[in-house]
Amino acid sequence: MSTKVKVAVVGASGYSGRELLRLLLLHPQAEIVAVTSRAHAGKPLVAEFPRWRGVANADSLTFVAPDIAALKAAGTQTAFLALPHGLAHEFAAPLLNAGIQVIDLSADFRLRNAALYEAFYGHPHPAPELLSQAVYALPELNGESIAGAQLLACPGCYPTSMLVPLVPLLRADLLENSPISVASMSGVSGAGRKESVPFLFCECNESVRSYGVPKHRHLSEVGQELDRAAGRHVRISFVPHLVPVNQGICTTIFAALREGITAGDVEKTLRGTYAGRPFVRLLGTNQCPDTKNVTGTNFIDVGWSFDERAGQLILMSAEDNLIKGASGQAVQNFNLAHGFPETTGLVLG
Amino acid sequence: MSTKVKVAVVGASGYSGRELLRLLLLHPQAEIVAVTSRAHAGKPLVAEFPRWRGVANADSLTFVAPDIAALKAAGTQTAFLALPHGLAHEFAAPLLNAGIQVIDLSADFRLRNAALYEAFYGHPHPAPELLSQAVYALPELNGESIAGAQLLACPGCYPTSMLVPLVPLLRADLLENSPISVASMSGVSGAGRKESVPFLFCECNESVRSYGVPKHRHLSEVGQELDRAAGRHVRISFVPHLVPVNQGICTTIFAALREGITAGDVEKTLRGTYAGRPFVRLLGTNQCPDTKNVTGTNFIDVGWSFDERAGQLILMSAEDNLIKGASGQAVQNFNLAHGFPETTGLVLG
Amino acid sequence: MSTKVKVAVVGASGYSGRELLRLLLLHPQAEIVAVTSRAHAGKPLVAEFPRWRGVANADSLTFVAPDIAALKAAGTQTAFLALPHGLAHEFAAPLLNAGIQVIDLSADFRLRNAALYEAFYGHPHPAPELLSQAVYALPELNGESIAGAQLLACPGCYPTSMLVPLVPLLRADLLENSPISVASMSGVSGAGRKESVPFLFCECNESVRSYGVPKHRHLSEVGQELDRAAGRHVRISFVPHLVPVNQGICTTIFAALREGITAGDVEKTLRGTYAGRPFVRLLGTNQCPDTKNVTGTNFIDVGWSFDERAGQLILMSAEDNLIKGASGQAVQNFNLAHGFPETTGLVLG
Amino acid sequence: MSTKVKVAVVGASGYSGRELLRLLLLHPQAEIVAVTSRAHAGKPLVAEFPRWRGVANADSLTFVAPDIAALKAAGTQTAFLALPHGLAHEFAAPLLNAGIQVIDLSADFRLRNAALYEAFYGHPHPAPELLSQAVYALPELNGESIAGAQLLACPGCYPTSMLVPLVPLLRADLLENSPISVASMSGVSGAGRKESVPFLFCECNESVRSYGVPKHRHLSEVGQELDRAAGRHVRISFVPHLVPVNQGICTTIFAALREGITAGDVEKTLRGTYAGRPFVRLLGTNQCPDTKNVTGTNFIDVGWSFDERAGQLILMSAEDNLIKGASGQAVQNFNLAHGFPETTGLVLG
Repeated sequence: MSTKVKVAVVGASGYSGRELLRLLLLHPQAEIVAVTSRAHAGKPLVAEFPRWRGVANADSLTFVAPDIAALKAAGTQTAFLALPHGLAHEFAAPLLNAGIQVIDLSADFRLRNAALYEAFYGHPHPAPELLSQAVYALPELNGESIAGAQLLACPGCYPTSMLVPLVPLLRADLLENSPISVASMSGVSGAGRKESVPFLFCECNESVRSYGVPKHRHLSEVGQELDRAAGRHVRISFVPHLVPVNQGICTTIFAALREGITAGDVEKTLRGTYAGRPFVRLLGTNQCPDTKNVTGTNFIDVGWSFDERAGQLILMSAEDNLIKGASGQAVQNFNLAHGFPETTGLVLG
Repeated sequence: MSTKVKVAVVGASGYSGRELLRLLLLHPQAEIVAVTSRAHAGKPLVAEFPRWRGVANADSLTFVAPDIAALKAAGTQTAFLALPHGLAHEFAAPLLNAGIQVIDLSADFRLRNAALYEAFYGHPHPAPELLSQAVYALPELNGESIAGAQLLACPGCYPTSMLVPLVPLLRADLLENSPISVASMSGVSGAGRKESVPFLFCECNESVRSYGVPKHRHLSEVGQELDRAAGRHVRISFVPHLVPVNQGICTTIFAALREGITAGDVEKTLRGTYAGRPFVRLLGTNQCPDTKNVTGTNFIDVGWSFDERAGQLILMSAEDNLIKGASGQAVQNFNLAHGFPETTGLVLG
Repeated sequence: MSTKVKVAVVGASGYSGRELLRLLLLHPQAEIVAVTSRAHAGKPLVAEFPRWRGVANADSLTFVAPDIAALKAAGTQTAFLALPHGLAHEFAAPLLNAGIQVIDLSADFRLRNAALYEAFYGHPHPAPELLSQAVYALPELNGESIAGAQLLACPGCYPTSMLVPLVPLLRADLLENSPISVASMSGVSGAGRKESVPFLFCECNESVRSYGVPKHRHLSEVGQELDRAAGRHVRISFVPHLVPVNQGICTTIFAALREGITAGDVEKTLRGTYAGRPFVRLLGTNQCPDTKNVTGTNFIDVGWSFDERAGQLILMSAEDNLIKGASGQAVQNFNLAHGFPETTGLVLG
Repeated sequence: MSTKVKVAVVGASGYSGRELLRLLLLHPQAEIVAVTSRAHAGKPLVAEFPRWRGVANADSLTFVAPDIAALKAAGTQTAFLALPHGLAHEFAAPLLNAGIQVIDLSADFRLRNAALYEAFYGHPHPAPELLSQAVYALPELNGESIAGAQLLACPGCYPTSMLVPLVPLLRADLLENSPISVASMSGVSGAGRKESVPFLFCECNESVRSYGVPKHRHLSEVGQELDRAAGRHVRISFVPHLVPVNQGICTTIFAALREGITAGDVEKTLRGTYAGRPFVRLLGTNQCPDTKNVTGTNFIDVGWSFDERAGQLILMSAEDNLIKGASGQAVQNFNLAHGFPETTGLVLG
C-alpha cells in the first residue's frame, strides 16, 4: 500500500532545485525517478551537489536533459518544475496532457490575469489558457483548492512572507484602506545560482542594499491575492533588500488599523486562522522573528506590534526563502494534493 | 602656526571610540593627548587595538582612567565623549566649566526636553540644565549652530540615516500629514563592544531580525527633529533590524507626498539642500544605495523613488553607522566648530 | 517492543547541547526526559532555543537544574553530558553508580593518563579512577569497544578531523617518523556560547586568525591516539585557526610517506578502513573537501594528494564541529552502544 | 616643484584595480591620466565603482579601451598593469619602448626562467626576452633593485605572505633542509571579479575549503625566491584555502630549525631584517596575527612560535591580499622607484 509517488524534478540545478532534492530524497512517500538539467545532462547528481553524496539514493541519480517523453517513460506521476521564470509553460501543457501532475515553483502560473502578467513581466503570457486551471497554492490560506489539483503554482518567496500575516487581516476587514508599506530582506540565494558579478561573494558580503524599486515583479501576485482577500483594491509599496546571508527572508509590514480595531483583534484573527497549522508559528505581541530560527525548515514565524505613537500596526515574518518560500511549500502542496499528512518529509530540525 | 588642537577621547574602547581614534590619529589638525578607558587603564592603546600599531603615534598612547583633572593637566582643548548612554553628563559639566569643548557621541544631550528623555530612557535626565546649551549637531542640517559651540551632541546613527532624507522635505512642506514608516538595517557594531550572548558571532551570522519594536530610543530624537523641521507633529513608525555586517546602516522610508507634489519636487529640494555638501551623495531617481559604498567613509548616499501604484514616496539611505553615524560626524563637527575645512581628516577612500 | 531509551541532556544550553537536542528530539529510539541548565533552570527549552518551537515535543520541555536525584527520578537510562571541560566528573561517577550510561562530550575522560591530563589542562584530573573504564569513542576507529560501554568519551572536534585520516595510515605503518604538520580552520561555534568580547560578531567577521600556538589542549588526545595507532611516539605540530563561519572544521595535514610507499597505498588503506562506514566519505585523489557539504550532517569528507615536488602527502578533511565533531558522534555512539543501526536519527540532508 | 607623476591603470575593473585606484586617487605624488577596461570603455569610473564617487577627481575619470597610443598621448609616465595573468606582455614591451615605466601586478614577469613559467602556466612564456630585465619587487627583501627600475613585477599575494617570514631565515641559514609545509587562507577577492558560479556568495559563505592541490601556480615564484635566498633547492608544500572574508590572507608555515638554532635566533634575524621597515609589524613570540588588523592597509603582521614537542618552528603572517599582496605593494614600489618616501599615500588607518 505504501507505493511511493514517482516524482521528477525539472530544472534541478538551482538553489530551489537543490533544496527540493534534499526534501524529496528523504521523503517517505516520494521516489525520484528523474532529475533534469540542460546544463548538466549526463552528470551524476552528486558531482554537482556533493553535499548529497551518500544521502538516500542520491548517488544513483544522473541529470538528464529535460524531455517530456523521457519523463513519461520513467513513470513520472508528479513533476516539480524548478525552472527560471518563463520556461515552465513549455513543460506544463504536455505534462498535464500526459496526465502528469505539475507543481510549479516559478511565477508562470501564479496570476489569474494574463494582462497583469504582461504588465509586470514585459511580454505576453505564453500559455494563458492554463491560468484558469492553476491553483495559487499557499496551503495555509488556499488549502481547500489544493487537494486533487493538477496544476499547482507555488507562491513566490517574498509573497509568502507578506500574505501569511496580511491575508487573514484583510479577510477580516481589520485594515484601513490606506497604503501598506513593506520592507523585506532576503538572503542571496534568492538571486539564483547563475554566473553574475553582482552576486559574487565580494559584492554581497559586507553589503546591505535595496533593489528593484518601485515595481518588483512579486507585487503582481501579492496585489492579486491581497485584493482577493480584501474584496477591494489594496495599495501596497514594497522594497526588497539584499543582505549577506545564504537563506532567509525577514519581512516587516506597516499598515493602519481600521477605526476601533485593536491589537487584540489582530492577535485573535491570526491565532484563529493558524490554529493547528504546523508550519505557522505565531510568536506573540512585540516578539520579533529571526531568520536563523527558520532556515532549513518549512516554518514561517510571525510577530506583531501596535505602534500607538504613530497609530500603525507592525507585522513581522521570517521564513527560509528556499523552503517555506519555495521547495518546502512545494512539498507541503504535494502532501496535501496526495492526501499525505501535511508534515510528511518536512519535519526538519 | 599650524598648532594642533589638543584632543582627548573619553571612553575609547568601544567601536565608536576605535573609529574615532583612527580619524584623530591621522587628523592633521588634532593631537591626541589622552585616551581614557576605565577597563583598560594602564594598557597600551595598541594592545587593545592592534590594528593601530604603527599608525601615526598610536604606539605611544596608553589608556588612562577617566579623570577630569588629568584631562585638564594634559592640556585638553576638546574632549570627545564616546561613552555608553547615561555616562556623558558626569563629564560634560566639569569639562565645560574648565573651558574644554565637549563633543558627545552619546544620546545624553540630544534632546531639548528632559521629559522626553525620561519617557524614552526610563529615568530622569541627570543634567537637564545642560540641555538648552547643547547643539544637535547634524552638520548638513544644523550647520549654522555648530561654529563655536561648546557642547555638541552628535546625532544617533539611525537618526542621521532618516533625518538627512526627510528633514529637507518636511521643511519644504512636501509630505502629507500621515504616518511615515521606516525600516532600517544595521550592522552589528551598532550593538557596541560588550560581552553579550545575543551579539556573539554565531547568534548574528546567518541571521536577520527586527528588534526594539515599537519604541526604539532613537525615535525620541528623530521625532524632535522631524517636528522641528515640519513645524507640526510628525507621526513615524520605525523598525530596526540587525543584519550580519560589521558596519553600515541601510534605511528605507515610506511617506506620502502632499497633493500636487511630484517626484521632481522631491529631487529639486534634496539637490538644493545638499548642493556643495561633500558628504551627502545624491544617487538619483530609482537608484538604490548600498552600504558597501560608504563603509569606512563619512559619506551618506541617498536615493529615492516614487511608487505611482501605491502613491507613496520611497526614500533610501546608506551610511556607516560608526563613521557618518558617529565618529566621522563628530570629527566633521570638530572641523566646523574650529573653522577647519569640513573634509579635513575625512577624505577616506 | 520499540520502547525508547530515556535520555537526559546535562548542560543543554551551549551549541553542542543545542545540536544534541535537535538530534534527540527527532531520534526514533530516544525519549528526552530531562534537559538541564544551571543558568536557565525553570525556563522553557524553546524560550532559549526558539528554533525548536514546534519540533517534536520540544515545547513541552523545561530546563531543570542539574541534579542526580532528579535525573534518576525521571528514569534516565543514558545521560549525555554537554558541559564545559572540567565539570563532567561531578556527574559521571554518581550517574554510573546509579546504573545510568554516560556519554560525555567534554574532554574529561578522553585521556588514559592522568599525568597527561594535568600537563595539558593545568590541574590534576578530578576523577582519575574513571579513566581506565572510559572508552575513547570514535566509532569508525574504536567501534569494537563501544557496544555495551557505560562511560563513553566522545572525541574532540579537531581530533576527529585529524584522526580519521591519520590513524589508518599509522596503523598500516605508511608514514615516516618525522613531524606531522596540521593546520585546521574552525567555525566560531567551537568557542562555545558564552559572553566574550573576542567572539562577538564584529571581532570574528572579516577576520581569519590562528590561535593557541604551540600547545592546544586537543594535542593531548590526538597524541595519545596517534601513538596508540603507530605503536611509537608520533610528533605533530598543530595550528588551529578561527574563520567566520558558524559551523565546520577544515583540516589540512602534511606528512612524509615511508620510503617506497605510494599514493596508491594511501588510497587503498583509507578505502579498506572505511568501506561500508556510512559517515566517512572518501572524495578521491586531489579532491578537496568543503565544509559546506557537511555542515548540519554527521559526515566527514576526506581527500588526499601526493605532492611529488616536496615529497609529502597532503590529507584534507571537513566535518561539522558540532555534529561529527560533537553531538552527532555522541548519537552515533549511542546508536552503537544500544545496538541500533548506526545511522538512526542521523540521516540529515 | 611638486609635479606629480602621470600614471595610468591598465585593467582597472578588477578588485586589485579597484584598490589601486583608491590608492592612486589619494596619492599626493600621482595623477591618474588614464584608466582602461576593455569591458567598460566609455563608462564613467564611478558608474562601475560607485564607492569612489566624490573621492578626489574620480568623478572626472572614464574608462578607455586599452591602447598604447592613447596612453602615450595622455602623457603616461608610469603604467600599472592590473590585468589577468597572461595579458601583461602585450602591453609591457610597447610601453617600455615608449619610455613608460611598467609596474605589473600579474604573474607574467615574476619568474627568471621561461621554462619554469611554462611548467606552471602550461604554455610558453609570451615575452621571454623581458624576463631578465624585470625586477621581482618585494620592497623589504629586494629593495636595492627597485630604485630606478623600469619593469617591476609585483609579487603574488600568497608569495608575499610566505616570503616575508621565510626569506630572512633562509638567507641566515637557520632552516633544516627538509620540506617546509604551508597552509594559507585567502579571502574571496583573490579569485578575481569575474562571473563564476564557484565564487557566488552562496557558494563561498559558510564554506571553508582547500583547493589547487598539490601544485598551485604561486609555488613557482615562491620556489624561485626561496631557492635564491637559501642558495640551495628548498622543498615546500603549499595548500591554499578559501575562506568567507572579502580581503585578507592568513598564512601558517611549519619548518624545521637546523641543529643548534634557537627560537631566539629566529626572532633576532627577523627583527634585524625588518628594523625600520614601516609595513612589516613583528608581533613577537606566540603572538598570532589576525587579518582584521591589516585589511585595507599595506601592513603585513608576522608572529612565530617554537613547538618544542614536535621540534618545529611555526611562522604566521597576515596581510591584505589586495593591498600588501597587490596594489599597496605596487604603490610602495612606485614610491621607491621614484624616490618618494616609502609610506607616501599608504598611511591607511
